[in-house]
Amino acid sequence: MKLHTYFRSSAAYRVRIALNLKGIDYEAVPVHLLRDGGQQKQPAYRHINPSGMVPTLQDERGTLTQSMAILEYLEETHPAVPLLPVDPLGRARVRELAQIVSCDIHPLNNLRVMHYLVDELGVTEDAKKTWLRHWIIEGFASMESHLERHPGTGKFCHGETPTMADCFLVPQVFNALRFEIDIAPYPNIARIYGNCIALPAFEKAAPGQQPDAE
Amino acid sequence: MKLHTYFRSSAAYRVRIALNLKGIDYEAVPVHLLRDGGQQKQPAYRHINPSGMVPTLQDERGTLTQSMAILEYLEETHPAVPLLPVDPLGRARVRELAQIVSCDIHPLNNLRVMHYLVDELGVTEDAKKTWLRHWIIEGFASMESHLERHPGTGKFCHGETPTMADCFLVPQVFNALRFEIDIAPYPNIARIYGNCIALPAFEKAAPGQQPDAE
Repeated sequence: MKLHTYFRSSAAYRVRIALNLKGIDYEAVPVHLLRDGGQQKQPAYRHINPSGMVPTLQDERGTLTQSMAILEYLEETHPAVPLLPVDPLGRARVRELAQIVSCDIHPLNNLRVMHYLVDELGVTEDAKKTWLRHWIIEGFASMESHLERHPGTGKFCHGETPTMADCFLVPQVFNALRFEIDIAPYPNIARIYGNCIALPAFEKAAPGQQPDAE
Repeated sequence: MKLHTYFRSSAAYRVRIALNLKGIDYEAVPVHLLRDGGQQKQPAYRHINPSGMVPTLQDERGTLTQSMAILEYLEETHPAVPLLPVDPLGRARVRELAQIVSCDIHPLNNLRVMHYLVDELGVTEDAKKTWLRHWIIEGFASMESHLERHPGTGKFCHGETPTMADCFLVPQVFNALRFEIDIAPYPNIARIYGNCIALPAFEKAAPGQQPDAE
């Protein structure tokens, strides 16, 4: 299995965690998002992923893009270490938490959006940081509220073992810390993040541990 | 089953399509995103959905948010009319196409982002429209390329019957047309959109057909 990845990509980081949790060996193929005008936008890469984004996963069956679709695929093809609970309502909750990150927070903070803000709208460095912080803080408040009030929240986002929700939360917290956002106002997020990064599967997936880390 | 919905919400529109395709009766509870400073942000609504967004689905089991999580839940609890194929690679592809819409296009164009652009960054009406068009055009180019090159594309995004991918694509095309974006450069998107809206399940879910339509 080959994972086209960039060490600091939040979406690639999610897939690395899931592969590690499931104990799936893979070959990391680095795609540098800042070099050569963005290697993800070059024809060679667009040939395997027309969206020009990371990650892309390739196995003997085919080529897959979009982190959530990849995680669901891994869940269906490698069910031995499950990342979704068995009950439909629990499964919906895990996906809901993952999607707060993947739909409500992360899309507003990725590289292409930052470029547009600066290059097309001419926003200042300060206004860019305020934008980043705004969407993360709003999303974390929502996530924390979901975690705080639900009896299913445990050592991890849902129960006592990691799920897809944790695969999504951890890279987002990593980003938040990188942008110097204080996560103390979100005690469940902070606690779950701590529990996750103590596990080898999460540690091994961290940006600083990747072959292409800078 | 109760669906908290707003007629023009793209995310609620996706769920309405899926409910109709599966033949599930539901009660529509309108949440007006522009009235009372946004009814979705009021305590009464946040009590059922702390994210303060539509849609929210309530059934006898519990309360669910996030459109993709809701569609997966409906698929698991009401499998009679499937919106995912049976093979893992096909399922991954349908989710991938849905996520191009839900992660790469729609989050950049929703109401709260438009408000931030105008209220916080002071962008002009023209620059706001350019922003909207930019992300839809970039996303549609990517979607079209995925559809064009894949043998699984049929009368619908994947095969000869509607899937989750179509539930996501149609509301996004509806938005694009509302913003006067020409979809002729995306022949597969335009063709599939036409095939979808000819079906009663899609027609009944359209914004103009909702009890809260204006």
